[in-house]
Amino acid sequence: MSGKHTTRKQDYSKWYNELVQRADLAEHSDVRGCMIIKPYGFAIWERMKEVLDQKFKETGHSNAYFPLFIPKSYLSKEASHVEGFAKECAVVTHYRLKNADDGSGVVVDPKAKLEEELIVRPTSETIIWNSYRNWIQSYRDLPILINQWANVVRWEMRTRLFLRTAEFLWQEGHTAHATDQEAREETARMLEVYADFAEQYMAMPVVKGRKTESERFAGAEDTLCIEALMQDGKALQAGTSHFLGQNFAKAFDVKFADKDGKLEHVWATSWGVSTRLMGALIMSHSDDEGLVLPPLLAPIQVVGIPIYRSAEDLEKISEKFDLLRVAFKKKGISFKYDDDDNRRPGWKFSEYETKGVPIRLAMGPRDLENGNIEVARRDTKTKEIISFDGVEEFIERLLKEIQSNLFDKADNFRKEKTSEAPDFESFKKLVNKGGFVSAHWDGTEATENKIKEETQATIRCIPLDQKKETGVCVYSGAPSKGKVLFAKAY
Amino acid sequence: MSGKHTTRKQDYSKWYNELVQRADLAEHSDVRGCMIIKPYGFAIWERMKEVLDQKFKETGHSNAYFPLFIPKSYLSKEASHVEGFAKECAVVTHYRLKNADDGSGVVVDPKAKLEEELIVRPTSETIIWNSYRNWIQSYRDLPILINQWANVVRWEMRTRLFLRTAEFLWQEGHTAHATDQEAREETARMLEVYADFAEQYMAMPVVKGRKTESERFAGAEDTLCIEALMQDGKALQAGTSHFLGQNFAKAFDVKFADKDGKLEHVWATSWGVSTRLMGALIMSHSDDEGLVLPPLLAPIQVVGIPIYRSAEDLEKISEKFDLLRVAFKKKGISFKYDDDDNRRPGWKFSEYETKGVPIRLAMGPRDLENGNIEVARRDTKTKEIISFDGVEEFIERLLKEIQSNLFDKADNFRKEKTSEAPDFESFKKLVNKGGFVSAHWDGTEATENKIKEETQATIRCIPLDQKKETGVCVYSGAPSKGKVLFAKAY
Repeated sequence: MSGKHTTRKQDYSKWYNELVQRADLAEHSDVRGCMIIKPYGFAIWERMKEVLDQKFKETGHSNAYFPLFIPKSYLSKEASHVEGFAKECAVVTHYRLKNADDGSGVVVDPKAKLEEELIVRPTSETIIWNSYRNWIQSYRDLPILINQWANVVRWEMRTRLFLRTAEFLWQEGHTAHATDQEAREETARMLEVYADFAEQYMAMPVVKGRKTESERFAGAEDTLCIEALMQDGKALQAGTSHFLGQNFAKAFDVKFADKDGKLEHVWATSWGVSTRLMGALIMSHSDDEGLVLPPLLAPIQVVGIPIYRSAEDLEKISEKFDLLRVAFKKKGISFKYDDDDNRRPGWKFSEYETKGVPIRLAMGPRDLENGNIEVARRDTKTKEIISFDGVEEFIERLLKEIQSNLFDKADNFRKEKTSEAPDFESFKKLVNKGGFVSAHWDGTEATENKIKEETQATIRCIPLDQKKETGVCVYSGAPSKGKVLFAKAY
Repeated sequence: MSGKHTTRKQDYSKWYNELVQRADLAEHSDVRGCMIIKPYGFAIWERMKEVLDQKFKETGHSNAYFPLFIPKSYLSKEASHVEGFAKECAVVTHYRLKNADDGSGVVVDPKAKLEEELIVRPTSETIIWNSYRNWIQSYRDLPILINQWANVVRWEMRTRLFLRTAEFLWQEGHTAHATDQEAREETARMLEVYADFAEQYMAMPVVKGRKTESERFAGAEDTLCIEALMQDGKALQAGTSHFLGQNFAKAFDVKFADKDGKLEHVWATSWGVSTRLMGALIMSHSDDEGLVLPPLLAPIQVVGIPIYRSAEDLEKISEKFDLLRVAFKKKGISFKYDDDDNRRPGWKFSEYETKGVPIRLAMGPRDLENGNIEVARRDTKTKEIISFDGVEEFIERLLKEIQSNLFDKADNFRKEKTSEAPDFESFKKLVNKGGFVSAHWDGTEATENKIKEETQATIRCIPLDQKKETGVCVYSGAPSKGKVLFAKAY
């Protein structure tokens, strides 16, 4: 099977593009930059949403929904925000079509021109803070802890499925607080939620850190992030949590009366993860044969395949799998039994390997006779014959083992691929080899830009656990207060 | 409390608008026709989504996601579809803004004009069938059973929260089948899913029927619907399921090879319900005091309120409510304990009444002494003191009773408000009184239009359980094969 497909070594980027399509996760649409998320891909995203949504609710947040469209003038209200977001976006200028005079189809009706153009939301701070103005009068109305699951559009010229698309799905949290400190705590709390989700569910180790000023969200005073390392040695920003200070409250005139009746501007955060996580998940674990999914996010955790010649055999094997179906349901293990008579077992083995199903069970007449079943692991590609009795407990343990094995494997890879660069010559070599490079930086944007120009590496983050130490900048030789993490990135 | 608000009798429409806002369900945004669904309103919608999504999955459907934008030319491919949907829609013409030369903000960059305009989806048949063309080759690829949860936009000049908004949230199922019969069965199956949801969860009785040709979905060969009756005697279409024949397969050239290798066009259905259901839910049960929610869709099923003077009392009462919290959690009953010290019990009583919480529990020092608790029902506005022992079983039964009481009440109302009109004089009187009017119709669009012009009543549906009987049309006197259901409608 793998012979037919591009391998990671041959062309990592091509391997990824092929994999997304042959695992039936997503495809390009005819609309430039917009993807179609297919049922199997969407089932993984749904599982991610479900887990994240629960975590948001456990931390006190509620969901709401704000308009898709943002009046053009709103974008201009926060000075740095407009620079970051007003440029590449979808602009609605008309609200009606009419039949073409020549009968060739429909054309835009020039009479139906909007007085003010509407922007399809690239992010919702402006429309949301415009609403919060009416919702907040006193400290009693705070905090507001809202999340929205939505589609957003940022016009992109070069797109890749899940990683960079014009339209994508995401969640955006938007909270309002009475104090600077409370908003900063919220920013940190949500970063922890993201890090925990990435590590515990996606089995993807992440570095928690802070963006440099030049990499901050447009309108934020502080941007925290989680950064993951893909198998090609490139970093991927997997989630961000922003402390917005009073910037949007000032732009939209949102004030509250504190306990003494004094009017103050409200403090804000916003935080989000998107369908980009699908790209991160795929690239963290998959191999040349296909997708590898962590059990906690796999739509199908276990697949059962009967090997048979006669209808009698099939019936007996199906009875055994029926017992398993019941046992798995009780344990909350998602199971699919594939007895489709149109496909041969070999085809099915390959299909579920491509789709990354963590465990494959197979049973033939001899297994039946001996009271056995074959268990194959997707992550290690090992298989073994075990006794049918107690197989459900075995599978339950194995799913946990696979989940932690995937994390450990990715974690070891990241450790191996993280190095320290004492000088710029070694820095350049290490960056080219791929992986995280930890190095001293003088704290200036000028140096950051120079390094990017010369090596394509960017500062992924200033790690939250950065050791305070004096040193000299790997590029300029100027004094540095600590090492930061560089890498080439998605 | 009710004295301050418009009552249903005074002005039903104003009552509705006020209620949506004071129960904190939704509000208008600054963007014409687009609403903001607030957390409490969204929590009800989330519960609806959860139940419907499970029903879709149980009937074999998977979720997927298709692009927000539809190329203008796609809309023209199905002749009647374009007539129905291409007219009032949001048109994206540009993909970039730039800083205005005079520094006044941002303006549309005329250089960034799209070659072909994009339409914000009003419904997704066209973009989906354009994809299905590549997904379907053989009968083995069928059926395709896909649903999408999405936002859609239909430019509306006169909008009302939930009932008619430019942007709304909905689900749209789009299925592809090898045979006419299978597609018709799917159309009927999904209507049953909707009817079951409306009656079992929304406690809202519905009439299942078929739309007349003039009221069909643009592009459908048959449209089934569920119709509900609101308290003001107007009907509301609560869900539709369309048999699309081969119309979209022909428009987008989607063929499959059958078992004999013969190429045939694919058969299609589509079906949807939207946030309009929120309007139907509100108008079915609510009263002059506020919202009334069926327990199965209420975000908070039971609220507990302590009545106290001293901190000691509060502590003891809170201990009791803590026991209930644990018991309710075990039973899957959603419970909120409101011990907010900033608000008085009277304020809280009124607040949860407005928000339609089905059961309110209150406990004061005397109840504590006597081992009692006060239980108040939102639907009947009755209250009683019961023994604290066994209260959780009592509440569990009561929630079921409230659910069925709401249905029965709405069902009785509907029966009272459904009448038969033997002639046009009585027809006009009955229609004006409000409610469903069952009458003979000659089957022509001309008569349908005349009746609409003269009475504002439309044919809501030809009931699926219509009795086959000959008669004469209430308007034209021409022969009729059976009675249909008329009403003024939302």
